[in-house]
Amino acid sequence: MQISELVQSSGVPLARVKFYIREGMLPPGKSLSATRSDYSEEHLRRLRLIRSLTEVAGLPLSRTRRILDILDKPEGPVVDLLGQAISALSVDTEDFAPSDVTPVDAYPRARAVIELLGGRYEPRMPALAQLEYALIAVEEAGMSATAERLQTYGPHIWAIAEAELAELPADDPTAAVERAVLGTTLYEPVIAALRRLAHQNITASKR
Amino acid sequence: MQISELVQSSGVPLARVKFYIREGMLPPGKSLSATRSDYSEEHLRRLRLIRSLTEVAGLPLSRTRRILDILDKPEGPVVDLLGQAISALSVDTEDFAPSDVTPVDAYPRARAVIELLGGRYEPRMPALAQLEYALIAVEEAGMSATAERLQTYGPHIWAIAEAELAELPADDPTAAVERAVLGTTLYEPVIAALRRLAHQNITASKR
Repeated sequence: MQISELVQSSGVPLARVKFYIREGMLPPGKSLSATRSDYSEEHLRRLRLIRSLTEVAGLPLSRTRRILDILDKPEGPVVDLLGQAISALSVDTEDFAPSDVTPVDAYPRARAVIELLGGRYEPRMPALAQLEYALIAVEEAGMSATAERLQTYGPHIWAIAEAELAELPADDPTAAVERAVLGTTLYEPVIAALRRLAHQNITASKR
Repeated sequence: MQISELVQSSGVPLARVKFYIREGMLPPGKSLSATRSDYSEEHLRRLRLIRSLTEVAGLPLSRTRRILDILDKPEGPVVDLLGQAISALSVDTEDFAPSDVTPVDAYPRARAVIELLGGRYEPRMPALAQLEYALIAVEEAGMSATAERLQTYGPHIWAIAEAELAELPADDPTAAVERAVLGTTLYEPVIAALRRLAHQNITASKR
Protein backbone atom coordinates (compact mmCIF):
# COMPACT_ATOMS: atom_id res chain seq x y z
CA MET A 1 0.00 0.00 0.00
CA GLN A 2 1.05 3.60 -0.43
CA ILE A 3 1.96 5.82 2.49
CA SER A 4 -1.34 7.69 2.18
CA GLU A 5 -3.22 4.44 2.69
CA LEU A 6 -1.02 3.59 5.64
CA VAL A 7 -1.88 6.95 7.19
CA GLN A 8 -5.57 6.41 6.60
CA SER A 9 -5.72 2.84 7.89
CA SER A 10 -3.61 3.48 10.98
CA GLY A 11 -5.02 6.87 11.90
CA VAL A 12 -1.47 8.12 12.47
CA PRO A 13 -0.78 11.48 10.76
CA LEU A 14 1.72 11.54 7.90
CA ALA A 15 4.25 13.73 9.70
CA ARG A 16 4.34 11.28 12.57
CA VAL A 17 4.70 8.24 10.30
CA LYS A 18 7.71 9.93 8.71
CA PHE A 19 9.10 10.71 12.13
CA TYR A 20 8.84 7.08 13.23
CA ILE A 21 10.64 5.96 10.07
CA ARG A 22 13.40 8.53 10.61
CA GLU A 23 13.78 7.38 14.21
CA GLY A 24 14.03 3.74 13.21
CA MET A 25 10.87 2.81 15.09
CA LEU A 26 9.11 1.86 11.84
CA PRO A 27 11.05 0.22 8.99
CA PRO A 28 11.07 2.16 5.70
CA GLY A 29 8.81 0.93 2.90
CA LYS A 30 10.06 -0.97 -0.13
CA SER A 31 11.25 1.67 -2.59
CA LEU A 32 9.27 1.63 -5.86
CA SER A 33 10.58 4.86 -7.36
CA ALA A 34 12.33 8.01 -6.18
CA THR A 35 9.10 9.26 -4.59
CA ARG A 36 7.06 6.14 -3.96
CA SER A 37 7.41 3.30 -1.48
CA ASP A 38 5.32 0.26 -0.79
CA TYR A 39 4.13 -0.55 2.73
CA SER A 40 2.91 -3.89 3.97
CA GLU A 41 0.43 -5.19 6.52
CA GLU A 42 3.43 -5.54 8.83
CA HIS A 43 3.93 -1.76 8.70
CA LEU A 44 0.30 -1.19 9.52
CA ARG A 45 0.46 -3.57 12.45
CA ARG A 46 3.58 -1.88 13.80
CA LEU A 47 2.06 1.58 13.47
CA ARG A 48 -1.04 0.45 15.35
CA LEU A 49 1.17 -0.91 18.11
CA ILE A 50 3.10 2.37 18.37
CA ARG A 51 -0.18 4.21 18.50
CA SER A 52 -1.53 1.95 21.24
CA LEU A 53 1.63 2.33 23.30
CA THR A 54 1.82 6.10 23.01
CA GLU A 55 -1.80 7.18 22.82
CA VAL A 56 -3.70 4.44 24.58
CA ALA A 57 -1.15 3.34 27.16
CA GLY A 58 0.20 6.90 27.39
CA LEU A 59 3.86 5.87 27.31
CA PRO A 60 6.49 8.51 26.51
CA LEU A 61 8.55 8.06 23.37
CA SER A 62 11.60 6.79 25.26
CA ARG A 63 9.68 3.94 26.85
CA THR A 64 7.82 3.10 23.64
CA ARG A 65 11.17 2.79 21.92
CA ARG A 66 12.51 0.52 24.65
CA ILE A 67 9.56 -1.83 24.24
CA LEU A 68 9.94 -1.88 20.45
CA ASP A 69 13.62 -2.74 20.93
CA ILE A 70 12.69 -5.69 23.12
CA LEU A 71 10.22 -6.85 20.47
CA ASP A 72 12.78 -6.49 17.69
CA LYS A 73 15.52 -8.46 19.39
CA PRO A 74 13.66 -11.18 21.20
CA GLU A 75 16.56 -12.89 22.95
CA GLY A 76 16.03 -15.72 25.36
CA PRO A 77 12.82 -17.40 26.46
CA VAL A 78 9.44 -15.67 26.42
CA VAL A 79 9.42 -15.19 30.19
CA ASP A 80 12.61 -13.14 29.95
CA LEU A 81 11.09 -10.95 27.26
CA LEU A 82 7.99 -10.55 29.34
CA GLY A 83 10.02 -9.59 32.37
CA GLN A 84 11.95 -7.01 30.36
CA ALA A 85 8.82 -5.57 28.78
CA ILE A 86 6.92 -5.35 32.05
CA SER A 87 9.94 -3.62 33.56
CA ALA A 88 10.23 -1.16 30.70
CA LEU A 89 6.59 -0.28 31.27
CA SER A 90 6.89 0.84 34.84
CA VAL A 91 6.39 4.47 35.47
CA ASP A 92 9.11 5.27 37.93
CA THR A 93 12.19 3.38 36.83
CA GLU A 94 13.94 6.30 35.26
CA ASP A 95 13.38 8.61 38.17
CA PHE A 96 15.32 6.38 40.52
CA ALA A 97 18.94 5.38 40.82
CA PRO A 98 20.21 2.91 38.22
CA SER A 99 19.34 -0.60 39.25
CA ASP A 100 22.91 -1.74 39.94
CA VAL A 101 23.35 0.79 42.73
CA THR A 102 19.88 0.40 44.25
CA PRO A 103 20.50 -0.37 47.91
CA VAL A 104 18.75 -3.46 49.21
CA ASP A 105 16.49 -1.44 51.46
CA ALA A 106 15.54 1.40 49.14
CA TYR A 107 11.86 0.44 49.40
CA PRO A 108 11.29 -0.58 53.00
CA ARG A 109 7.46 -0.41 52.88
CA ALA A 110 7.21 -2.29 49.61
CA ARG A 111 9.70 -4.83 50.88
CA ALA A 112 7.65 -5.47 54.03
CA VAL A 113 4.52 -5.95 51.93
CA ILE A 114 6.17 -8.37 49.51
CA GLU A 115 7.60 -10.39 52.38
CA LEU A 116 4.22 -10.41 54.10
CA LEU A 117 2.68 -11.80 50.92
CA GLY A 118 5.38 -14.40 50.44
CA GLY A 119 6.58 -12.85 47.18
CA ARG A 120 10.15 -12.43 46.05
CA TYR A 121 11.89 -9.18 46.86
CA GLU A 122 14.31 -8.14 44.16
CA PRO A 123 15.37 -4.52 44.57
CA ARG A 124 15.54 -4.18 40.80
CA MET A 125 11.85 -4.84 40.20
CA PRO A 126 10.63 -1.46 39.01
CA ALA A 127 7.09 -1.83 40.35
CA LEU A 128 8.62 -1.69 43.84
CA ALA A 129 9.20 2.04 43.51
CA GLN A 130 5.60 2.43 42.44
CA LEU A 131 4.35 0.42 45.42
CA GLU A 132 6.58 2.30 47.84
CA TYR A 133 5.27 5.60 46.53
CA ALA A 134 1.66 4.47 46.81
CA LEU A 135 2.21 3.27 50.38
CA ILE A 136 3.79 6.59 51.36
CA ALA A 137 0.70 8.42 50.09
CA VAL A 138 -1.53 6.14 52.17
CA GLU A 139 0.66 6.77 55.21
CA GLU A 140 0.61 10.53 54.73
CA ALA A 141 -3.16 10.47 54.82
CA GLY A 142 -2.97 8.72 58.18
CA MET A 143 -4.45 5.50 56.81
CA SER A 144 -1.54 3.08 57.00
CA ALA A 145 -2.23 -0.21 55.26
CA THR A 146 -2.89 -2.89 57.86
CA ALA A 147 -1.38 -6.32 57.45
CA GLU A 148 -4.93 -7.70 57.35
CA ARG A 149 -5.86 -5.53 54.42
CA LEU A 150 -2.72 -6.40 52.52
CA GLN A 151 -3.19 -10.08 53.22
CA THR A 152 -6.70 -9.75 51.82
CA TYR A 153 -5.41 -8.04 48.69
CA GLY A 154 -2.49 -10.37 48.07
CA PRO A 155 -4.09 -13.66 47.02
CA HIS A 156 -6.79 -11.93 44.94
CA ILE A 157 -4.31 -9.81 43.05
CA TRP A 158 -1.93 -12.71 42.53
CA ALA A 159 -4.81 -14.77 41.16
CA ILE A 160 -5.73 -11.99 38.73
CA ALA A 161 -2.10 -11.69 37.58
CA GLU A 162 -1.78 -15.47 37.15
CA ALA A 163 -4.87 -15.61 34.98
CA GLU A 164 -3.67 -12.69 32.88
CA LEU A 165 -0.28 -14.24 32.22
CA ALA A 166 -1.85 -17.61 31.44
CA GLU A 167 -3.90 -15.98 28.68
CA LEU A 168 -0.78 -14.88 26.76
CA PRO A 169 0.01 -16.81 23.58
CA ALA A 170 2.78 -19.27 24.45
CA ASP A 171 4.03 -19.84 20.92
CA ASP A 172 4.43 -16.28 19.70
CA PRO A 173 6.91 -14.26 21.80
CA THR A 174 6.27 -11.00 19.96
CA ALA A 175 2.52 -11.25 20.37
CA ALA A 176 2.95 -12.27 24.01
CA VAL A 177 5.08 -9.25 24.84
CA GLU A 178 2.77 -6.94 22.93
CA ARG A 179 -0.29 -8.22 24.77
CA ALA A 180 1.45 -8.20 28.15
CA VAL A 181 2.47 -4.58 27.78
CA LEU A 182 -0.88 -3.37 26.51
CA GLY A 183 -2.83 -5.58 28.89
CA THR A 184 -0.96 -4.41 31.96
CA THR A 185 -1.69 -0.81 31.11
CA LEU A 186 -5.16 -1.04 29.61
CA TYR A 187 -6.68 -3.26 32.26
CA GLU A 188 -5.52 -1.08 35.12
CA PRO A 189 -8.42 1.39 34.65
CA VAL A 190 -10.82 -1.52 34.06
CA ILE A 191 -9.88 -3.01 37.43
CA ALA A 192 -10.11 0.38 39.16
CA ALA A 193 -13.58 1.01 37.71
CA LEU A 194 -14.76 -2.50 38.63
CA ARG A 195 -13.63 -1.95 42.22
CA ARG A 196 -15.60 1.30 42.42
CA LEU A 197 -18.62 -0.39 40.91
CA ALA A 198 -18.27 -3.17 43.45
CA HIS A 199 -18.25 -0.58 46.23
CA GLN A 200 -21.38 1.01 44.79
CA ASN A 201 -23.07 -2.35 44.29
CA ILE A 202 -22.32 -3.62 47.77
CA THR A 203 -23.33 -0.34 49.39
CA ALA A 204 -26.55 -0.19 47.35
CA SER A 205 -27.49 -3.76 48.24
CA LYS A 206 -27.32 -2.90 51.96
CA ARG A 207 -29.63 0.08 51.66
CA MET B 1 -4.19 27.39 68.81
CA GLN B 2 -3.38 30.43 66.71
CA ILE B 3 -3.68 30.43 62.95
CA SER B 4 0.13 30.29 62.58
CA GLU B 5 0.19 27.05 64.56
CA LEU B 6 -2.65 25.68 62.45
CA VAL B 7 -0.62 26.45 59.32
CA GLN B 8 2.45 24.79 60.73
CA SER B 9 0.72 21.66 62.01
CA SER B 10 -1.38 21.11 58.91
CA GLY B 11 1.24 22.04 56.34
CA VAL B 12 -1.39 24.10 54.52
CA PRO B 13 -0.14 27.60 53.60
CA LEU B 14 -1.79 30.59 55.31
CA ALA B 15 -3.33 31.99 52.13
CA ARG B 16 -5.03 28.70 51.45
CA VAL B 17 -6.33 28.35 55.02
CA LYS B 18 -7.92 31.78 54.66
CA PHE B 19 -9.37 30.78 51.32
CA TYR B 20 -10.99 27.67 52.80
CA ILE B 21 -12.52 29.75 55.61
CA ARG B 22 -13.84 32.32 53.13
CA GLU B 23 -15.34 29.53 51.02
CA GLY B 24 -17.03 27.96 54.03
CA MET B 25 -15.03 24.74 53.70
CA LEU B 26 -13.35 25.35 57.06
CA PRO B 27 -15.31 26.98 59.92
CA PRO B 28 -13.85 30.26 61.23
CA GLY B 29 -11.96 30.17 64.53
CA LYS B 30 -13.37 31.46 67.80
CA SER B 31 -12.78 35.22 67.80
CA LEU B 32 -10.48 36.33 70.66
CA SER B 33 -9.89 39.93 69.54
CA ALA B 34 -10.16 41.96 66.35
CA THR B 35 -7.06 40.28 64.94
CA ARG B 36 -6.82 36.98 66.77
CA SER B 37 -8.87 33.80 66.61
CA ASP B 38 -8.55 30.49 68.34
CA TYR B 39 -8.50 27.23 66.37
CA SER B 40 -9.20 23.78 67.74
CA GLU B 41 -8.09 20.25 67.02
CA GLU B 42 -11.26 19.95 64.98
CA HIS B 43 -9.95 22.64 62.62
CA LEU B 44 -6.66 20.85 62.26
CA ARG B 45 -8.42 17.58 61.49
CA ARG B 46 -10.60 19.24 58.88
CA LEU B 47 -7.63 20.94 57.21
CA ARG B 48 -5.79 17.64 57.03
CA LEU B 49 -8.83 16.08 55.41
CA ILE B 50 -9.05 18.88 52.82
CA ARG B 51 -5.37 18.46 52.14
CA SER B 52 -5.73 14.70 51.69
CA LEU B 53 -8.67 15.11 49.34
CA THR B 54 -7.05 17.77 47.19
CA GLU B 55 -3.36 16.92 47.28
CA VAL B 56 -3.26 13.21 47.98
CA ALA B 57 -6.45 12.08 46.26
CA GLY B 58 -6.04 14.81 43.65
CA LEU B 59 -9.69 15.88 43.69
CA PRO B 60 -10.63 19.25 42.20
CA LEU B 61 -12.07 21.86 44.53
CA SER B 62 -15.65 21.28 43.37
CA ARG B 63 -15.57 17.60 44.25
CA THR B 64 -13.76 18.20 47.55
CA ARG B 65 -16.51 20.63 48.48
CA ARG B 66 -19.21 18.11 47.60
CA ILE B 67 -17.65 15.52 49.88
CA LEU B 68 -17.32 18.02 52.72
CA ASP B 69 -21.01 18.86 52.27
CA ILE B 70 -21.94 15.21 52.61
CA LEU B 71 -19.84 14.99 55.77
CA ASP B 72 -21.41 18.11 57.22
CA LYS B 73 -25.01 17.07 56.70
CA PRO B 74 -24.94 13.36 57.34
CA GLU B 75 -28.55 12.52 56.57
CA GLY B 76 -29.84 9.00 56.55
CA PRO B 77 -28.04 5.76 57.32
CA VAL B 78 -24.30 5.32 56.88
CA VAL B 79 -24.73 3.28 53.70
CA ASP B 80 -26.50 6.20 52.04
CA LEU B 81 -23.72 8.56 53.00
CA LEU B 82 -21.18 6.10 51.71
CA GLY B 83 -23.06 5.76 48.45
CA GLN B 84 -23.19 9.52 48.03
CA ALA B 85 -19.53 9.99 48.87
CA ILE B 86 -18.35 7.21 46.58
CA SER B 87 -20.45 8.75 43.83
CA ALA B 88 -19.06 12.23 44.43
CA LEU B 89 -15.59 10.75 44.07
CA SER B 90 -15.96 9.38 40.59
CA VAL B 91 -13.98 11.04 37.91
CA ASP B 92 -16.42 11.26 35.08
CA THR B 93 -19.78 12.14 36.57
CA GLU B 94 -19.72 15.79 35.65
CA ASP B 95 -18.73 15.19 32.08
CA PHE B 96 -21.83 13.18 31.36
CA ALA B 97 -25.50 13.98 31.10
CA PRO B 98 -27.30 14.64 34.38
CA SER B 99 -28.33 11.37 35.96
CA ASP B 100 -32.08 11.83 35.48
CA VAL B 101 -31.76 11.92 31.71
CA THR B 102 -29.18 9.14 31.43
CA PRO B 103 -30.69 6.65 29.02
CA VAL B 104 -30.78 3.07 30.25
CA ASP B 105 -28.27 1.95 27.66
CA ALA B 106 -25.76 4.78 27.84
CA TYR B 107 -23.03 2.34 28.88
CA PRO B 108 -23.61 -0.83 26.88
CA ARG B 109 -20.19 -2.38 27.52
CA ALA B 110 -20.25 -1.65 31.23
CA ARG B 111 -23.80 -2.93 31.42
CA ALA B 112 -22.86 -6.23 29.78
CA VAL B 113 -19.98 -6.66 32.22
CA ILE B 114 -22.10 -5.93 35.29
CA GLU B 115 -24.76 -8.34 34.10
CA LEU B 116 -22.12 -10.96 33.40
CA LEU B 117 -20.84 -10.57 36.95
CA GLY B 118 -24.31 -10.70 38.47
CA GLY B 119 -24.09 -7.14 39.80
CA ARG B 120 -26.81 -4.55 39.78
CA TYR B 121 -26.99 -2.20 36.81
CA GLU B 122 -28.18 1.26 37.80
CA PRO B 123 -27.52 3.77 35.03
CA ARG B 124 -26.86 6.42 37.68
CA MET B 125 -23.85 4.71 39.20
CA PRO B 126 -21.01 7.03 38.20
CA ALA B 127 -18.32 4.36 38.01
CA LEU B 128 -20.21 2.97 35.00
CA ALA B 129 -18.96 5.81 32.84
CA GLN B 130 -15.44 5.09 34.03
CA LEU B 131 -15.78 1.39 33.24
CA GLU B 132 -17.30 2.10 29.81
CA TYR B 133 -14.42 4.42 28.99
CA ALA B 134 -11.83 1.87 30.11
CA LEU B 135 -13.48 -0.86 28.05
CA ILE B 136 -13.53 1.35 24.95
CA ALA B 137 -9.78 1.91 25.32
CA VAL B 138 -9.22 -1.86 25.53
CA GLU B 139 -11.38 -2.35 22.46
CA GLU B 140 -9.54 0.32 20.48
CA ALA B 141 -6.28 -1.48 21.10
CA GLY B 142 -7.84 -4.61 19.61
CA MET B 143 -7.78 -6.47 22.92
CA SER B 144 -11.44 -6.82 23.77
CA ALA B 145 -12.03 -8.13 27.26
CA THR B 146 -13.13 -11.75 27.08
CA ALA B 147 -15.95 -13.00 29.26
CA GLU B 148 -13.46 -15.42 30.81
CA ARG B 149 -11.15 -12.63 31.86
CA LEU B 150 -13.97 -10.58 33.30
CA GLN B 151 -15.34 -13.56 35.16
CA THR B 152 -11.90 -14.08 36.63
CA TYR B 153 -11.69 -10.47 37.72
CA GLY B 154 -15.20 -10.23 39.15
CA PRO B 155 -15.11 -12.39 42.26
CA HIS B 156 -11.62 -11.25 43.24
CA ILE B 157 -12.47 -7.59 42.93
CA TRP B 158 -15.78 -8.02 44.71
CA ALA B 159 -13.97 -9.80 47.55
CA ILE B 160 -11.49 -6.93 47.82
CA ALA B 161 -14.31 -4.37 47.88
CA GLU B 162 -16.26 -6.36 50.52
CA ALA B 163 -13.23 -6.50 52.79
CA GLU B 164 -12.59 -2.79 52.37
CA LEU B 165 -16.15 -1.83 53.24
CA ALA B 166 -16.19 -4.21 56.21
CA GLU B 167 -13.17 -2.39 57.67
CA LEU B 168 -15.04 0.93 57.89
CA PRO B 169 -16.07 2.05 61.37
CA ALA B 170 -19.78 1.21 61.77
CA ASP B 171 -20.50 3.62 64.62
CA ASP B 172 -19.02 6.83 63.24
CA PRO B 173 -20.61 7.94 59.95
CA THR B 174 -18.25 10.85 59.43
CA ALA B 175 -15.17 8.74 59.93
CA ALA B 176 -16.63 6.01 57.72
CA VAL B 177 -17.25 8.38 54.82
CA GLU B 178 -13.85 9.99 55.24
CA ARG B 179 -12.10 6.64 55.18
CA ALA B 180 -14.18 5.33 52.29
CA VAL B 181 -13.35 8.33 50.13
CA LEU B 182 -9.65 8.36 50.92
CA GLY B 183 -9.38 4.58 50.84
CA THR B 184 -11.02 4.27 47.43
CA THR B 185 -8.59 6.75 45.97
CA LEU B 186 -5.41 5.96 47.85
CA TYR B 187 -5.55 2.22 47.49
CA GLU B 188 -6.07 2.33 43.73
CA PRO B 189 -2.33 2.87 43.07
CA VAL B 190 -1.45 0.31 45.75
CA ILE B 191 -3.54 -2.30 43.95
CA ALA B 192 -2.09 -1.32 40.55
CA ALA B 193 1.47 -1.60 41.87
CA LEU B 194 0.76 -4.94 43.55
CA ARG B 195 -0.60 -6.31 40.27
CA ARG B 196 2.55 -5.28 38.42
CA LEU B 197 4.68 -6.78 41.16
CA ALA B 198 2.66 -9.96 40.90
CA HIS B 199 3.35 -10.03 37.14
CA GLN B 200 7.06 -9.56 37.81
CA ASN B 201 7.09 -12.16 40.57
CA ILE B 202 5.24 -14.79 38.58
CA THR B 203 7.35 -14.18 35.47
CA ALA B 204 10.57 -14.28 37.51
CA SER B 205 9.62 -17.53 39.19
CA LYS B 206 9.20 -19.21 35.81
CA ARG B 207 12.62 -18.16 34.58
